[in-house]
Amino acid sequence: MLRLLITGGTFDKHYDAVRGELTFRDTHLPQILETVRCTVPLELEICRLVDSLYMGDEDRQAVAEACRAAPERSIVITHGTDSMTLTAERLLQEGLDKTIVLTGAMVPFTVSGSDALFNLGGAIVAARTCPPGVYIVMHGQVFPAGRVQKNRGQGCFEETL
Amino acid sequence: MLRLLITGGTFDKHYDAVRGELTFRDTHLPQILETVRCTVPLELEICRLVDSLYMGDEDRQAVAEACRAAPERSIVITHGTDSMTLTAERLLQEGLDKTIVLTGAMVPFTVSGSDALFNLGGAIVAARTCPPGVYIVMHGQVFPAGRVQKNRGQGCFEETL
Amino acid sequence: MLRLLITGGTFDKHYDAVRGELTFRDTHLPQILETVRCTVPLELEICRLVDSLYMGDEDRQAVAEACRAAPERSIVITHGTDSMTLTAERLLQEGLDKTIVLTGAMVPFTVSGSDALFNLGGAIVAARTCPPGVYIVMHGQVFPAGRVQKNRGQGCFEETL
Amino acid sequence: MLRLLITGGTFDKHYDAVRGELTFRDTHLPQILETVRCTVPLELEICRLVDSLYMGDEDRQAVAEACRAAPERSIVITHGTDSMTLTAERLLQEGLDKTIVLTGAMVPFTVSGSDALFNLGGAIVAARTCPPGVYIVMHGQVFPAGRVQKNRGQGCFEETL
Repeated sequence: MLRLLITGGTFDKHYDAVRGELTFRDTHLPQILETVRCTVPLELEICRLVDSLYMGDEDRQAVAEACRAAPERSIVITHGTDSMTLTAERLLQEGLDKTIVLTGAMVPFTVSGSDALFNLGGAIVAARTCPPGVYIVMHGQVFPAGRVQKNRGQGCFEETL
Repeated sequence: MLRLLITGGTFDKHYDAVRGELTFRDTHLPQILETVRCTVPLELEICRLVDSLYMGDEDRQAVAEACRAAPERSIVITHGTDSMTLTAERLLQEGLDKTIVLTGAMVPFTVSGSDALFNLGGAIVAARTCPPGVYIVMHGQVFPAGRVQKNRGQGCFEETL
Repeated sequence: MLRLLITGGTFDKHYDAVRGELTFRDTHLPQILETVRCTVPLELEICRLVDSLYMGDEDRQAVAEACRAAPERSIVITHGTDSMTLTAERLLQEGLDKTIVLTGAMVPFTVSGSDALFNLGGAIVAARTCPPGVYIVMHGQVFPAGRVQKNRGQGCFEETL
Repeated sequence: MLRLLITGGTFDKHYDAVRGELTFRDTHLPQILETVRCTVPLELEICRLVDSLYMGDEDRQAVAEACRAAPERSIVITHGTDSMTLTAERLLQEGLDKTIVLTGAMVPFTVSGSDALFNLGGAIVAARTCPPGVYIVMHGQVFPAGRVQKNRGQGCFEETL
């Protein structure tokens, strides 16, 4: 069993035609999992639906508590990319005996050329094949928490030296 | 380093507007890897571009030889779903000290509602996190070769009992 | 008021993941009209859901009768491209005092790079702006029935000389 | 011959993955016209690439001058929806002996569920079938300039009473 914890981020942004902007309405995860024919037994839990730029200590605390409370030992968290490394480091401090994988998207699922499905596929597999720990899965790579940063100029994650 | 071996399959089918049918023209993998912002260093190799229904012993032999010849120890193979388990079993007999992951799609990358990106993301991660062996990655699951079958009625892979 | 008569064709083809082929299941028109925010009051009528290669005299007769029976004076017909000109000529013989526009797609709505929405938008406008008569609207062009042919080599419609 | 005058608007917005927002980079019109297999001979002209909320008198003057200077008698203008009616009214004052059609999109071409292709198809047909005048083509409807408004609450255009 796997828990899929949703916090929002670019991954789940939706275009609001009336307001003319990208925003949150609902998560696309149930529809996505059906579309890609995911057969992994999993529990969905919506924890937040926010831009990770606006996530603070309390939000990260809530994510940590959701991970601790989850009965599953494999957890995937969809998260905005801007503070994904911070949440990963916060979860590392919890020292849970679980495999926790954070992932997200540089381009929303609803926008053409999105990396959301590719990253999600990688994250679900990593949550089931990696040893207990906290990881960020983006761009086909598995980065251990605490040793990864977002390169804002290039729009991608990379190992810290 | 990872080698991505292309054999075609539903994954890479393209709609030919003149002939009015799904067929092969070229692989979409270079475009896909750029779109999803894959940063894993990899080598692309086109081995075949065929429907796996029409793959025979010689085709499987060619795939096995390409795996043996590859200098990389992590290999992802895109493959049609109809005979993916046969090729996986053939590769298992080779006993290579490499992590070889076969993947594909139930719906072509070029058709809406495709599972291609999700499966590819999972396959690339599995090729880098699983111990040496031969695997099929589909639907978010990692199936060891020899213990997986395609359920044709439901259009999905499942463990053999 | 406008009547939208559905006969199938490439426009409405759907990928059947179990059978691995393009086929018909249901029309996508209700979903399409909502997605593109069409506000033209219209009645949908499913007449056929077939590949136009397999349309015979009886099918064309049924389309003609549906046009005659329709209370609306503006009619759009979605149709396969292979025999669209034949149905248009058959409708021309009816001499109805209505504006009848046939349209379709070279690439199914469900396949990336589809021309379905572009052609449908043109057909709906033509049905409301052109004088009574029978027309084919494809590729941004309005062709009068009887003076248009499908260029099979190039996959497009063109005026007959 | 038809002239396609590009001014930007939601139609042409693109997701900038580095900045994480919808913005302008380039027009998608050449790619769109090829994809939908438009065979209408046309000239593309980029006049502006802006959000129509920020269009002022000078911008509208530039659009009017481009219409006047164009040798073609059929003109389609892609335009943001927020001030499309203002530009249409400005063009009406010019009294040109041309058929000028403004169109746009409620959802960008690059976002799933876009109405861009549908509206563009309608606009190109209207530019070739309507008598000289200024029109807005949206949602399958042809609205004469001066008698149409954007209903901001519902996100659609409607006739003024």
